[in-house]
Amino acid sequence: MKALEAVLDRVDQDIDQSVARLFALLRIASISTDPAYKDQCRAAAEHVAADLKSIGFEASVRPTAGHPVVVGKSNSATGPRVLFYGHYDVQPVDPLNLWKTPPFEPRIETLPDGRKIIVARGACDDKGQAMTFIEACRAFKVVTGRLPLPITMLIEGEEECGSKNLFGFVRDNAAELKLDLALVCDTAMWDQKTPAVTTSLRGLIYEDVKIICADRDLHSGVFGGAAQNPLRLLAEILGAMWDDKGRVTIPGFYDGVKDLPSDIKADLKALDLTAEKFLGPIGLKNPAGEKDRLVIEQVTTRPTAEINGIIGGYTGEGAKTVIPGEASAKVSFRLVGEQDPEKIRDAFRDFVRARLPGDCKVEFGNFALAPAIQLSFDNPALTKARGVLAEEWGHKAVAVGAGGSIPIVADFKNVLGMDSLLVGFALDDDRVHSPNEKFDLKCFHKGIRSWARILHALAS
Amino acid sequence: MKALEAVLDRVDQDIDQSVARLFALLRIASISTDPAYKDQCRAAAEHVAADLKSIGFEASVRPTAGHPVVVGKSNSATGPRVLFYGHYDVQPVDPLNLWKTPPFEPRIETLPDGRKIIVARGACDDKGQAMTFIEACRAFKVVTGRLPLPITMLIEGEEECGSKNLFGFVRDNAAELKLDLALVCDTAMWDQKTPAVTTSLRGLIYEDVKIICADRDLHSGVFGGAAQNPLRLLAEILGAMWDDKGRVTIPGFYDGVKDLPSDIKADLKALDLTAEKFLGPIGLKNPAGEKDRLVIEQVTTRPTAEINGIIGGYTGEGAKTVIPGEASAKVSFRLVGEQDPEKIRDAFRDFVRARLPGDCKVEFGNFALAPAIQLSFDNPALTKARGVLAEEWGHKAVAVGAGGSIPIVADFKNVLGMDSLLVGFALDDDRVHSPNEKFDLKCFHKGIRSWARILHALAS
Repeated sequence: MKALEAVLDRVDQDIDQSVARLFALLRIASISTDPAYKDQCRAAAEHVAADLKSIGFEASVRPTAGHPVVVGKSNSATGPRVLFYGHYDVQPVDPLNLWKTPPFEPRIETLPDGRKIIVARGACDDKGQAMTFIEACRAFKVVTGRLPLPITMLIEGEEECGSKNLFGFVRDNAAELKLDLALVCDTAMWDQKTPAVTTSLRGLIYEDVKIICADRDLHSGVFGGAAQNPLRLLAEILGAMWDDKGRVTIPGFYDGVKDLPSDIKADLKALDLTAEKFLGPIGLKNPAGEKDRLVIEQVTTRPTAEINGIIGGYTGEGAKTVIPGEASAKVSFRLVGEQDPEKIRDAFRDFVRARLPGDCKVEFGNFALAPAIQLSFDNPALTKARGVLAEEWGHKAVAVGAGGSIPIVADFKNVLGMDSLLVGFALDDDRVHSPNEKFDLKCFHKGIRSWARILHALAS
Repeated sequence: MKALEAVLDRVDQDIDQSVARLFALLRIASISTDPAYKDQCRAAAEHVAADLKSIGFEASVRPTAGHPVVVGKSNSATGPRVLFYGHYDVQPVDPLNLWKTPPFEPRIETLPDGRKIIVARGACDDKGQAMTFIEACRAFKVVTGRLPLPITMLIEGEEECGSKNLFGFVRDNAAELKLDLALVCDTAMWDQKTPAVTTSLRGLIYEDVKIICADRDLHSGVFGGAAQNPLRLLAEILGAMWDDKGRVTIPGFYDGVKDLPSDIKADLKALDLTAEKFLGPIGLKNPAGEKDRLVIEQVTTRPTAEINGIIGGYTGEGAKTVIPGEASAKVSFRLVGEQDPEKIRDAFRDFVRARLPGDCKVEFGNFALAPAIQLSFDNPALTKARGVLAEEWGHKAVAVGAGGSIPIVADFKNVLGMDSLLVGFALDDDRVHSPNEKFDLKCFHKGIRSWARILHALAS
């Protein structure tokens, strides 16, 4: 414990230099989606690799078909082998005129409530967050002469444009990347006081459904009444996907969905995320999901069905009495627990086909078929992380679910068979992806301390 | 009866000249929707007016904000005063390359089955049909020296582009146009052997429905489950408009809908319009309407609800996990009998509002609110017309409904308080509005004879 205290002291003493090092990285305009910034992306990768080398990693900039991946390895310690994932690329900055100061000229600002914030593109997502981990490693290296665990770093440069080359990279390098646990720092705290570990990510099924009736568009004055109407069929069939309690009616949909452990549910309930707090900012107030579930369950730990798009018939100004020959919808499902994406996709398709008149056709297309990710609530690393986060922040660390997916985390699980511990220090008001992105200085500082504690705990 | 026989003989003797006169009108390219043909529209109006003058009408070409209206009056006879409505304008001719011969160079062609047809744009719709009436008048004038009834002619030039100036013209000239009965020749026979009187036209309500939920588009990974989705609401609400017997579920929807008189229904049943015959050509076979109704009822004498368009969310290629803030639908209702358009519109809006969560909004727009038109089945003019049509064609004349509306007929009823007798000689294969439009020579010839018989019968 003495070693940890020395490391935490070092973090505190060195915080100005930590900020300076973060600023150096933030000054590199590594916008991955815009080919004009290719050189800056490479420069950011080389900057990170050099920094990793300076604290004892054997680091290299590895080519991909797109922007390179930085891999760093330090195996001087013993203990569980961890893979840290982050990304050095950032989102575009438009609209530029909404930035108070240039996006790649980082600065510290003091808010009216006294909070100090780091303002720049990437301050939080993900340069600031990734640097919390790197700075924690640095403090260990300075104080103890080595890292507390065998650590492999995987810092990619295409997260903001879909990580499309990373998936192949992970497959191709599975032998060196398949370790005992992945650590990811790209998520948020519950609020300014409450640390959080993201223990689940919902899976996704995304289907395109085209219903075809007559072989041409029809005039409703001639055929109206007798001809099948694909928009009516879409409304009748898709409208039947929910019962009046908000539950999805597709047979077998809830197979593999478990209730939360009672202590986890009690924690979520204590967060008191009311409909007013969650939906008020977007102009709504009545939760649309299962009536017997908390709002936070509806958006994170319960599965959903959504219609993401419908188009068919006449959609311009005024009136046209057409019965279209065909109409299309996009339908998606967020999955949790052990729900089987293929089984549910098939059950959905059967649900549609069973309700389709015999003279109509349906064509399906699939664009996503990903299972949910769930870290076991009794995973020892989770227990340790929650414990030390509580020590650092003075508040119980909540285990929360994320409503969306993080594809690379799914790949870690599905390709490498490796669980991920997702700990992040972003706040709701960080304006991630927007002008004037920021990261609270306190989140950066205590984020470094948090990782130091987690690494120490995992090594123990 | 002797006079009628002489008139009919005259029609037969004069048929070649009748065709020649129709050809003269067909040679005028009176395409009303294209401003480039403004002069030809005027020329067609003047041609018709001159022709009417030649058979004793006091005729004039009356200006409107668009193409002129021809009005002709002949009040030399006594008896019920009739208003004949037709139109001298025609549809555009594109695609021109699909015409076997130029559209405004009329010709006679003999089909492989021996039928002779008149081919030209407007051969049927409506120059050929209107000329059946004019030629019948001409025969009376030649044989008897006068017309058998007081007749007012109303031949417009904007039917193919919405009659938008005719409605005001009728209102402004109600005093001279409000007579005892309107005669319209712009409809079809049941088939080549079976004459038909169109005794009803369905009314129309056309609504635009926009449902507004969140004040922005949302990411389903963040809000999916808790946020209201306007596409789900549209599907759930509009999908509930029909029960499993195909009946519309909106309260009060069927108020004012009567069953057909048993003799009329027996006639319709005898026509044996099977689903296979009616829906087969468009690739369908299962009637979508009320399960206990004939197909011909479903499309003509029963009311309907249709979704004519839906748009919302992501509708491009691939996937986007959006929950849209708003989504829109076009919904229409075909009305029959005494259904009250305003009451049903209000009931529909109540139906939507009653199913809408309290934090969502709906905006309605109305683009049509027209009651159905129904000629009483015991109207004496109808009885007379059906009787003489049967004599002319050797087959019982059926009283059928039209599934769509003819706006001017609604105006005759609603503005002038005047019933319309709709008799026409078009056939299903006339290619109206399409390349190579035709009118059977037999339909033209016997059409003239039919009107001679009807005028004689109405005068008796």
